[in-house]
Amino acid sequence: MKRPLILVSNDDGITSKGIRTLVNVMKRLGDVLVVAPDSPQSGMGHAITVGETLRLTESFIFEGVKAYECSGTPADCVKMARHFVLRDKVQPDVVVSGVNHGSNTSISVLYSGTMSAAIEGAIEGTPAIGFSLCDFSHDADFSHTEEYIYKITKQVLDKGLQKGVALNVNFPPKRAEAVKGIRICRQANAKWVEEFLERIDPNGRKYYWMTGNFVNFDKGEDNDEWAIANNYVSVVPCQFDLTAYSALPTLNEDWEILNQ
Amino acid sequence: MKRPLILVSNDDGITSKGIRTLVNVMKRLGDVLVVAPDSPQSGMGHAITVGETLRLTESFIFEGVKAYECSGTPADCVKMARHFVLRDKVQPDVVVSGVNHGSNTSISVLYSGTMSAAIEGAIEGTPAIGFSLCDFSHDADFSHTEEYIYKITKQVLDKGLQKGVALNVNFPPKRAEAVKGIRICRQANAKWVEEFLERIDPNGRKYYWMTGNFVNFDKGEDNDEWAIANNYVSVVPCQFDLTAYSALPTLNEDWEILNQ
Repeated sequence: MKRPLILVSNDDGITSKGIRTLVNVMKRLGDVLVVAPDSPQSGMGHAITVGETLRLTESFIFEGVKAYECSGTPADCVKMARHFVLRDKVQPDVVVSGVNHGSNTSISVLYSGTMSAAIEGAIEGTPAIGFSLCDFSHDADFSHTEEYIYKITKQVLDKGLQKGVALNVNFPPKRAEAVKGIRICRQANAKWVEEFLERIDPNGRKYYWMTGNFVNFDKGEDNDEWAIANNYVSVVPCQFDLTAYSALPTLNEDWEILNQ
Repeated sequence: MKRPLILVSNDDGITSKGIRTLVNVMKRLGDVLVVAPDSPQSGMGHAITVGETLRLTESFIFEGVKAYECSGTPADCVKMARHFVLRDKVQPDVVVSGVNHGSNTSISVLYSGTMSAAIEGAIEGTPAIGFSLCDFSHDADFSHTEEYIYKITKQVLDKGLQKGVALNVNFPPKRAEAVKGIRICRQANAKWVEEFLERIDPNGRKYYWMTGNFVNFDKGEDNDEWAIANNYVSVVPCQFDLTAYSALPTLNEDWEILNQ
């Protein structure tokens, strides 16, 4: 049987510990191609490079794996992998992104470069998965994620995914107690409340650091925040059709300006 | 009656023609506060500034309007307006963004800084609207959009919007024939197919320009692409809960690894 082709990207950059974990697991599952940012791209959301140029350079940091570092965003990396490196001639069997250093649960999915790489895969019709570890440290312990990354990716390769869907997978931080299992979840209803810390630069001008506190409004047990807090791996299927279908009838009925 | 407080942002930057159009219309509807990027931020998606600092400087380019230019992304601008400029003490009655120089129909909503500013508004529970003109030129003619911007914003101020929803409003380019009216739409099923143009820099190193062709797969007449092509204003209600609810039952039934 032909080995699957697996495209790997991330948002912490090609030298991060998280992508090394992901590449090592993927080598057990298929042939791996890495196209990842040459510098950290956290918080880039679904940004793409418009009006500026891109660089793409072969990298030799993964033994036995074809890899490139790209000057662009995670979404740029996936576009460049498919339409330039693979020349649209070969399609990956799965696109995986991560493992992110930090949580991408709940509303953070919107700001996540990790998930934008996965969603680019889904837009192109390829099954795609973003993996994140709810531990922001640079030298985070990823050892407990490997078995789950393998099982989830294998399941997706075997069963496929609904068209237009990418999975947002989050892992609890490494704890003394083993992870309890996997939960299929919805995105929790939560948000960040920002604060801006004012500082003065050496020239006497003000500048600001944005900091945020996460606020969870969700009391349910079927969402990703609950799963992580209870030591489960959370899996949220995400879509890129943002239409709020439930709002269509009301707008059509209520808006007088439609008939003017 | 108290005049509404209207927060204005955009992604083309505070000096663009589009935001000037929007500010002028909003002055007829309420008290206006502008917090907009100090440089163009097209294609920034829902990026936020992580690990870098922000600048915020008062601007005097709009007569009689309090305005600030911010070094960050459109999403940063809205966060900074609410949590720093307004100190969380006053809530805007509506957040408006644009008018973008260029289309944000269909899949482009994901890459749109204009819409990320609006969606930030929705996350905070404020009615929010992103406006875009399907004409990318720097000196585009916005004259036909003004009446519609006024009517749509007035309607939203009067009726409110479903919680968690921001409107993605696109205008057809200025044509000889008048715009036919407004259509409530879903996001069209379409995508960009990228090409990468290779160039050589003065030092002999390769670099690339990303270009794209828009491909519309959607044959329906209820989507935003159809509306624009037929000279209507398109209004798509957008949500930030990305959960693909339709995929939940299948995953729960099909995945053997849930029970291992």
